Amino acid sequence: MSSAAPLWRRAVAEAVGTGLLVTVVIGSGIAASALSPSDIGLQLLENAFATALGLAVLILMLGPVSGAHFNPVVSAVDWWLGRRTGTGLTPRELVAYIPAQVVGAIAGAVLANLMYAKAAVSWSTTDRSTGHLWLGEVVATAGLVVLIFALGWSGRAAVAPAAVGAYIGAAYWFTSSTSFANPAVSIGRAFSDTFAGIAPGSLPGFIVAQLLGAIVGVGLLAVLYPDAGQAANDIVTPHTDTTTTGATK
Amino acid sequence: MSSAAPLWRRAVAEAVGTGLLVTVVIGSGIAASALSPSDIGLQLLENAFATALGLAVLILMLGPVSGAHFNPVVSAVDWWLGRRTGTGLTPRELVAYIPAQVVGAIAGAVLANLMYAKAAVSWSTTDRSTGHLWLGEVVATAGLVVLIFALGWSGRAAVAPAAVGAYIGAAYWFTSSTSFANPAVSIGRAFSDTFAGIAPGSLPGFIVAQLLGAIVGVGLLAVLYPDAGQAANDIVTPHTDTTTTGATK
Amino acid sequence: MSSAAPLWRRAVAEAVGTGLLVTVVIGSGIAASALSPSDIGLQLLENAFATALGLAVLILMLGPVSGAHFNPVVSAVDWWLGRRTGTGLTPRELVAYIPAQVVGAIAGAVLANLMYAKAAVSWSTTDRSTGHLWLGEVVATAGLVVLIFALGWSGRAAVAPAAVGAYIGAAYWFTSSTSFANPAVSIGRAFSDTFAGIAPGSLPGFIVAQLLGAIVGVGLLAVLYPDAGQAANDIVTPHTDTTTTGATK
Amino acid sequence: MSSAAPLWRRAVAEAVGTGLLVTVVIGSGIAASALSPSDIGLQLLENAFATALGLAVLILMLGPVSGAHFNPVVSAVDWWLGRRTGTGLTPRELVAYIPAQVVGAIAGAVLANLMYAKAAVSWSTTDRSTGHLWLGEVVATAGLVVLIFALGWSGRAAVAPAAVGAYIGAAYWFTSSTSFANPAVSIGRAFSDTFAGIAPGSLPGFIVAQLLGAIVGVGLLAVLYPDAGQAANDIVTPHTDTTTTGATK
Repeated sequence: MSSAAPLWRRAVAEAVGTGLLVTVVIGSGIAASALSPSDIGLQLLENAFATALGLAVLILMLGPVSGAHFNPVVSAVDWWLGRRTGTGLTPRELVAYIPAQVVGAIAGAVLANLMYAKAAVSWSTTDRSTGHLWLGEVVATAGLVVLIFALGWSGRAAVAPAAVGAYIGAAYWFTSSTSFANPAVSIGRAFSDTFAGIAPGSLPGFIVAQLLGAIVGVGLLAVLYPDAGQAANDIVTPHTDTTTTGATK
Repeated sequence: MSSAAPLWRRAVAEAVGTGLLVTVVIGSGIAASALSPSDIGLQLLENAFATALGLAVLILMLGPVSGAHFNPVVSAVDWWLGRRTGTGLTPRELVAYIPAQVVGAIAGAVLANLMYAKAAVSWSTTDRSTGHLWLGEVVATAGLVVLIFALGWSGRAAVAPAAVGAYIGAAYWFTSSTSFANPAVSIGRAFSDTFAGIAPGSLPGFIVAQLLGAIVGVGLLAVLYPDAGQAANDIVTPHTDTTTTGATK
Repeated sequence: MSSAAPLWRRAVAEAVGTGLLVTVVIGSGIAASALSPSDIGLQLLENAFATALGLAVLILMLGPVSGAHFNPVVSAVDWWLGRRTGTGLTPRELVAYIPAQVVGAIAGAVLANLMYAKAAVSWSTTDRSTGHLWLGEVVATAGLVVLIFALGWSGRAAVAPAAVGAYIGAAYWFTSSTSFANPAVSIGRAFSDTFAGIAPGSLPGFIVAQLLGAIVGVGLLAVLYPDAGQAANDIVTPHTDTTTTGATK
Repeated sequence: MSSAAPLWRRAVAEAVGTGLLVTVVIGSGIAASALSPSDIGLQLLENAFATALGLAVLILMLGPVSGAHFNPVVSAVDWWLGRRTGTGLTPRELVAYIPAQVVGAIAGAVLANLMYAKAAVSWSTTDRSTGHLWLGEVVATAGLVVLIFALGWSGRAAVAPAAVGAYIGAAYWFTSSTSFANPAVSIGRAFSDTFAGIAPGSLPGFIVAQLLGAIVGVGLLAVLYPDAGQAANDIVTPHTDTTTTGATK
């Protein structure tokens, strides 16, 4: 069903989904910091609660159209791992997905700002550029990549929405960087000087760390699921849902 | 199975479900503001926790009887989108559902007030009438409409209870208006001058914004799922649950 | 599979399950009040978080053995509604289940007290005996009864563990009584003078309210699902899980 | 599918999974205590939220490779209960799993420390060595063992990821010991002098209590599911997922 959608429609879905994900992240962060001013941990718990639920819902909502990547790293790994078998994104599709995700993310930040009666754009001043935060991004992105493709290859894409939401909800807490794990969302978060923001100057370090994390994730997949990439083509997986997150398009 | 139920029984189910949804929203709001007086964010987290779980349970409980709309906007969109294919509510059914939802919502507010030993009715004095809150309602309602019909059209109505609960739990946080997204529930919430209330004078603005959101949602569905409305009739969807939220009656 | 278990084993399962449910309720209440001394709402949120997850897990754990009622009201309604069709508990089974639940509940309270280095038994001094709390118990128990049998009759018993846990987690918040909704658990909670306790003198009022709630729930089921009791026998429900909560034994 | 993986790969999966579980537990504990300094209960809620979600995700991620035990007690019970029927780990596999889990757990603690810019290793100074905490560990481990094998034997291994995560999230609260319930994770937690740590001197008592809990759990399984061990071999369980947690390899 998803393959039936023309590429422009899938790009729209990626833009809408990535945008609303940024709206969820920034919007809930603004609400949390305004309503729970005396405890930053409680703010992060509120932010994580909203993001875990909201991300799961967005993947359910748009998975049948585009696969619900919402993340250039996921799209790139999907292309890379599917080259041999022809199951991943084509280069042409990748080139459509990534700009859609980035443009959507920026629009999502503007929407969050406007919903809370703030200026449409305010550059974030939150510096996030130390080595241990980069390590956090490597771990966060590697785990996300392993999760998504492990689910897809083992015929369990139907649980991906809940699982990816749960992963990010946990990773907000167990990584020091609060788990951005997504270059497009990172860029979007630079456009709001609020709780979930990141200063533009910190973006390059985060994005490089996320790409490194993707490479680590691909390496772990090669060790843990060496045959799965091919097997996915051979097996008729029963009860596979049409919801996908990149791996079972 | 749901179609077998006579209309009066389905209207009772809509009244009971919408009413208990309002009881959940108002009751948990009263408890939260009484028990966590020093942090409004914590109050909203408690309110969102109870609503996300409670709404999912109510959809499970009553979905097989009426489709568990609990929301005039959802019922109206169900009628509108199903006109061509005959899969939605008929005008006669719509005219039964909406008053049942509104009457149920008011009764639910009274029940919450009585459970907490308050006057049966106290008009809310919480003014909610600024433009950025209306924008929040547009976003909240559009997202709800897209979610419900995307799930129904893609044969995943069985996950609608959890997904709709999760959506509202997240939207309490990421929209500035705390996501009423429902004209009947909004009216019910005017009958309790407590945490979750809304002043009667703010109702028209909220309801107009919700209707605008429904139109935006229908537009997004037309872009993202252009063929789905018809396809739903042609496909024999395996494993479709009898729980529905408007789209797969 | 559950019907294959001899009655003594099912009674053991009911005792273990009801007991551990009380351990979860009281134990998490003790931890919450000790660790979050300055906000009662936060204590209740912690208590509700633990109970929603713990109850779901206990139903998964013991459902295949006994149906995982853990509640005399649920057992009694199961017997009452199944009389015509022979699908419910027999009177002999009911007479085995209820004492097992009560004895288990008391043992669970003792276990919680001991795990927290308290006296094995300390009578609760928390008075809960006003009319609006009784109304809360009527609402809580009626909702629980409708939920359990609606799921069982519509072939969705597989989601009962999560749904019943979610219901109680929400009802802790939306009912004024924090939703005991269970005579056996109420009795167990009298044996611990801690956060979740109830003074023995308040038990009769609560238990009467719970029985009234059960009657209200049975009435609602008669209105909403009039044919379901019989239908359950006629339909071959595909994919029914062996986990049951009273209705699909 | 899992049985197809060579033993070295399964051991790698156990090391990675146990390690990341410790990273989740310690990492979220560091974040919680830093961000919510004024309420220990809130810290534990944040820690439990992250662990419940993170553990569920890790079981999804690695279950198809190794069964996702992440716990020497679970592996040992799997060997013990499967001796008669040949369905459990062999002694040779057990001897590979347990060291992998312990080494992984220590590496996971180091990773958490480094992500938060702390020394790679700091011995925990948190004394946990009183009788009521040991009772907590007995209860926690017994419950975990009953849950895992009850799910596996009744053909519901597909819900094990969510159920085991939920169990630990609840047990953080209802046991006095915050439910370590895992000798490998306990050892790993000795390598970080932070919120979730345990002093090395308290390890022997905890591990003995966990082994006792495993024996109690095996005893409860013998009472509640006496035929299930054999039956698992005879029944063709439909829809069994490839995700396993020890019992359905």
